Amino acid sequence: MSGHGEFDLIREFFTRPARDTNVVLGIGDDAALLAVPAGDVLAVTTDTLVAGRHFPEEAAAADIGWKSLAVNLSDLAAMGATARWVTLAITLPDNNEHFLREFSRGFFALADQENVRLVGGDTTRGPLAITVTAMGTLPAATAIRRDGARAGDDLYVSGTVGDAGLGLRLALDQWPDELAQATRDMALASLHRPHPRLALGTALRGVASAGLDVSDGVAQDLGHLLQASGVGAELELDALPMSTALQAIDPAFAVILALTSGDDYELLFTAPPAMRDAIAGLPVRCTRIGCITASPGLVLLRNGQPVDMPVAGYTHF
Amino acid sequence: MSGHGEFDLIREFFTRPARDTNVVLGIGDDAALLAVPAGDVLAVTTDTLVAGRHFPEEAAAADIGWKSLAVNLSDLAAMGATARWVTLAITLPDNNEHFLREFSRGFFALADQENVRLVGGDTTRGPLAITVTAMGTLPAATAIRRDGARAGDDLYVSGTVGDAGLGLRLALDQWPDELAQATRDMALASLHRPHPRLALGTALRGVASAGLDVSDGVAQDLGHLLQASGVGAELELDALPMSTALQAIDPAFAVILALTSGDDYELLFTAPPAMRDAIAGLPVRCTRIGCITASPGLVLLRNGQPVDMPVAGYTHF
Repeated sequence: MSGHGEFDLIREFFTRPARDTNVVLGIGDDAALLAVPAGDVLAVTTDTLVAGRHFPEEAAAADIGWKSLAVNLSDLAAMGATARWVTLAITLPDNNEHFLREFSRGFFALADQENVRLVGGDTTRGPLAITVTAMGTLPAATAIRRDGARAGDDLYVSGTVGDAGLGLRLALDQWPDELAQATRDMALASLHRPHPRLALGTALRGVASAGLDVSDGVAQDLGHLLQASGVGAELELDALPMSTALQAIDPAFAVILALTSGDDYELLFTAPPAMRDAIAGLPVRCTRIGCITASPGLVLLRNGQPVDMPVAGYTHF
Repeated sequence: MSGHGEFDLIREFFTRPARDTNVVLGIGDDAALLAVPAGDVLAVTTDTLVAGRHFPEEAAAADIGWKSLAVNLSDLAAMGATARWVTLAITLPDNNEHFLREFSRGFFALADQENVRLVGGDTTRGPLAITVTAMGTLPAATAIRRDGARAGDDLYVSGTVGDAGLGLRLALDQWPDELAQATRDMALASLHRPHPRLALGTALRGVASAGLDVSDGVAQDLGHLLQASGVGAELELDALPMSTALQAIDPAFAVILALTSGDDYELLFTAPPAMRDAIAGLPVRCTRIGCITASPGLVLLRNGQPVDMPVAGYTHF
């Protein structure tokens, strides 16, 4: 960390005692010094959230804080890494103490929950944007990569999908139908406060053959996995796990949201059939939604029969 | 790395073979996997550059690429770390291939020179800003921190200072005097293409007692070092090392620039007098500009006599 006035802002809102003995030196010098446990490799990922693009301009600062951390921790979860440290770069239009206080509240609510330490930062003036770099550790051989799926593997997704997509349409006033308040609340919470699947990610070490997180939608992210692994897949639409919120809307729309909307941050992964018992015993419900095939491409099924469903995020691969 | 369309942009411009055997997995999965050498700790720093604030709106894209990496590597140099890996988050107003191509040219010119690998990235749409997170490695005990200066230590700065400050005023058309073209060129190059002192940083392991890089000006950055170490300093103004460019301007302005202008990215460090021979033999010229005192505060000297010089960046501590 250096220069540019972040001392005042970051010291006030973001300096906390680092009780992690792996943090040799935390915020306040030119760089943090971090000890990676012997035998582990470092997993690093970075994602930027821009106002008006990754969250509505009027989003609550606490939600922005939570989500900017969550989307990065989700990438670590997808690798099977233990989340450890993050750096935070905030660009703010003005010295807005209220925003920083609320942002900090949301950010640290998740950081504390997941035992993640902020080890560096930079605060700059400019249009609102947040870049988080998240670091985790794991034994290299246990990393869950995108390129390990094999024909015959089962295809799974954790939790439920499509909720954040419904939430986004509600947030943008693009949902025409009346919805119960509980349904709205559930969908909006999925959008604003996604829960990175860190415990599931580490539990999937040695179980999953490949995996990634669902940031752009099941169809599109599955496409990335299939391409990296050089395989194809069959996906049973009726198997897509949906929340009670999504079950409350028109089933035709629900399946499109579940298949193509992003921001759910569930884990999409593959595993050999021999792992079915292990997966049934995982702490998070994981639903088998299809299987990996040797022939490339994605085939969508309904009751076992291929269906033609040209939806965004699906047709392009 | 995940989502948000960076696949197209980053793959085209930033995917390069990672010949570094410490890169277990590079760009293209949810996170990079990196092997920290046994016995070393990881040094991590992050800095954001915003258009119109950290570089002129009309700055050349190649210069922006160079500088966004340079300011981060400079923080690693200041710790004495060996620079290894970086992630790059770019927010761009539009899909500007020309900008990305030129940005990439400047970024990789420095990355290749310093043997640094890009291991992750994110490209988003929005007002132009760049966040780089730089990672290096070093034995923890050899890290050059800000809090190690002791009374009696010598105070040094590498290279020359004030050139980037002159360059900034030239770039902003805020310099009233006529200057020779060579002087202008030297000052502008210092501003746009700073050279992080990485080789010097690692050479200072076991030599410097404390140090940081000069991003906000000698006076202000020295203040950070003194505060962290709980000491004071005497600084001889006539000893401040100046380039031929700065020697070509009014000496009264030159000393203010050398003392208070930022962006030079030289190393400011302390060392016990027993290290003078070792420092004289370093690959970069380092000039002794003063000494550390037990009493707090900074005393400016001219010919050994205290002078009163209320300049920005100096008066506030």
